[in-house]
Amino acid sequence: MLDLVGTFAFALNGALTAIRVVDVDLVGVLTLGIITAVGGGIVRDVLLGALPPATFVDWRYLAVAGAGGLLAFLFSRELRRLRVSMHVLDAAGLSLFAVTGAGKALELGAGPAQAILLGALTGVGGGTVRDVLIRRVPDVLRTGLYAIPALLAAALVVLTSGIGVDRVLGAPAALAAASVCFAVRMIGLRFHLNAPRPRGVPRRPPGGTA
Amino acid sequence: MLDLVGTFAFALNGALTAIRVVDVDLVGVLTLGIITAVGGGIVRDVLLGALPPATFVDWRYLAVAGAGGLLAFLFSRELRRLRVSMHVLDAAGLSLFAVTGAGKALELGAGPAQAILLGALTGVGGGTVRDVLIRRVPDVLRTGLYAIPALLAAALVVLTSGIGVDRVLGAPAALAAASVCFAVRMIGLRFHLNAPRPRGVPRRPPGGTA
Amino acid sequence: MLDLVGTFAFALNGALTAIRVVDVDLVGVLTLGIITAVGGGIVRDVLLGALPPATFVDWRYLAVAGAGGLLAFLFSRELRRLRVSMHVLDAAGLSLFAVTGAGKALELGAGPAQAILLGALTGVGGGTVRDVLIRRVPDVLRTGLYAIPALLAAALVVLTSGIGVDRVLGAPAALAAASVCFAVRMIGLRFHLNAPRPRGVPRRPPGGTA
Repeated sequence: MLDLVGTFAFALNGALTAIRVVDVDLVGVLTLGIITAVGGGIVRDVLLGALPPATFVDWRYLAVAGAGGLLAFLFSRELRRLRVSMHVLDAAGLSLFAVTGAGKALELGAGPAQAILLGALTGVGGGTVRDVLIRRVPDVLRTGLYAIPALLAAALVVLTSGIGVDRVLGAPAALAAASVCFAVRMIGLRFHLNAPRPRGVPRRPPGGTA
Repeated sequence: MLDLVGTFAFALNGALTAIRVVDVDLVGVLTLGIITAVGGGIVRDVLLGALPPATFVDWRYLAVAGAGGLLAFLFSRELRRLRVSMHVLDAAGLSLFAVTGAGKALELGAGPAQAILLGALTGVGGGTVRDVLIRRVPDVLRTGLYAIPALLAAALVVLTSGIGVDRVLGAPAALAAASVCFAVRMIGLRFHLNAPRPRGVPRRPPGGTA
Repeated sequence: MLDLVGTFAFALNGALTAIRVVDVDLVGVLTLGIITAVGGGIVRDVLLGALPPATFVDWRYLAVAGAGGLLAFLFSRELRRLRVSMHVLDAAGLSLFAVTGAGKALELGAGPAQAILLGALTGVGGGTVRDVLIRRVPDVLRTGLYAIPALLAAALVVLTSGIGVDRVLGAPAALAAASVCFAVRMIGLRFHLNAPRPRGVPRRPPGGTA
């Protein structure tokens, strides 16, 4: 259920980003919304060898993602004014996906480091694929705290699973991990926090040069 | 056999597009031609978990695709004048791939919605991967009717399979579905038809801004 | 062991390229370094259906790749002066990956043509994925001799395996194939050799136009 909320949030936000950045038609808006929503889960499942991917096989994910994309198409003007709510929805999606992604990776036998990476990848993967398709250097590689809260939440999932907490306190532990991710992401947005950058490299216009 | 014709058409057209858009050498022309031709089938097979992918394992696909790429490399100047024939060849490839892709997805147990998406993806996937590699926002997301005829043909395949027509009239039904896709694609090209665009978004230069 | 040396070289070089071309933060440098190092192997294993991919499951690859990325982050200024050593390291990584990649493909039952392609793909795949993420048309498609030496080494591996040499002279044969790749790559760099380009196409600014 929470997973579907995250899917909807990601599809809506992903489609709105696409509309804002490039000229896309209905096909493009729906495609990019769906890819943002289910792409991270697909990449995770490919890397786990859990094919066909769950988010592709389960029609509810595709339906909810398609609905989010359609809403973005129909009401892009209105929705763009709600940028703060979009940030909140996106942070919620990131937190939920990182936690469920890490949990699924553990279930399928991934090691701790792999589960942490796959959890974060579930959160950031869909947006990254969308950015590649609309010809942007993915934000997650450049600015803000996006991968770091996702890695943090996934690490908490792996930790609580490792010490056996998740068997007694499964749902609350998952919720706590998601909350940490959400809080770090929102604090990062509010105070414009960034991960450290390489020394001695001058800032360049976004996208860089070829 | 028809599949190999589509493969050749896609490789030729994909390689010519690459030559037109970016500076590529022989390696690039061949690689991009082959990717355009077999990429859609590979993405479909990865999503179906049918690995290794058929278009990669069957040497005839690679040989035909390589031949198409090589022809484009040798005769790019001459072939570029034949733009109309190229459009026809490309539309034929799209139609054949959408139909065979949807059929293969059904065979491997995909649901109806998934089979429709995978059929269309088989048609548009290779060109999309090529566009990403040559740094274009894929046309399929932006302009013209390209995904829509492919979705239509794939839906017809799923429908005729669902009502059992394909058992009695397999080849004619497939051919009819491909013809619908081909007709819609050519009509769209002829009359410059486009899918609807989001309201209130000004047209921008292609590729957008970062 | 040699594989880990190649992994380190690719991670270091991949991360430095990313720093040079786009504005990336710590997350981006590490991610792009790791992707350059393990991406080729992952794409190969996906195409072989050998999932989860070896370079993702084995923590040593991830650790060595992460270390290479971190080193690039910390000492990007100093390391950039060592461009020649970087070229040497990168050519070594390419040679080792092409040889081990082709060998692994043969082990897993790929045909000769597929094994050659997968060997070369193991060598060039990671850098290609990195280039897509930082919005560059991959160099391997455009300029220099990069894929050709990798294809040559992979073909030598397939050949020696086909005539049974590898059973008696496994390690020396592999080393010889890697040396051929390394030599061709370095000669190409030294004398600015390029693969042939399509006739009648004027050189354009890198990256082309949309």
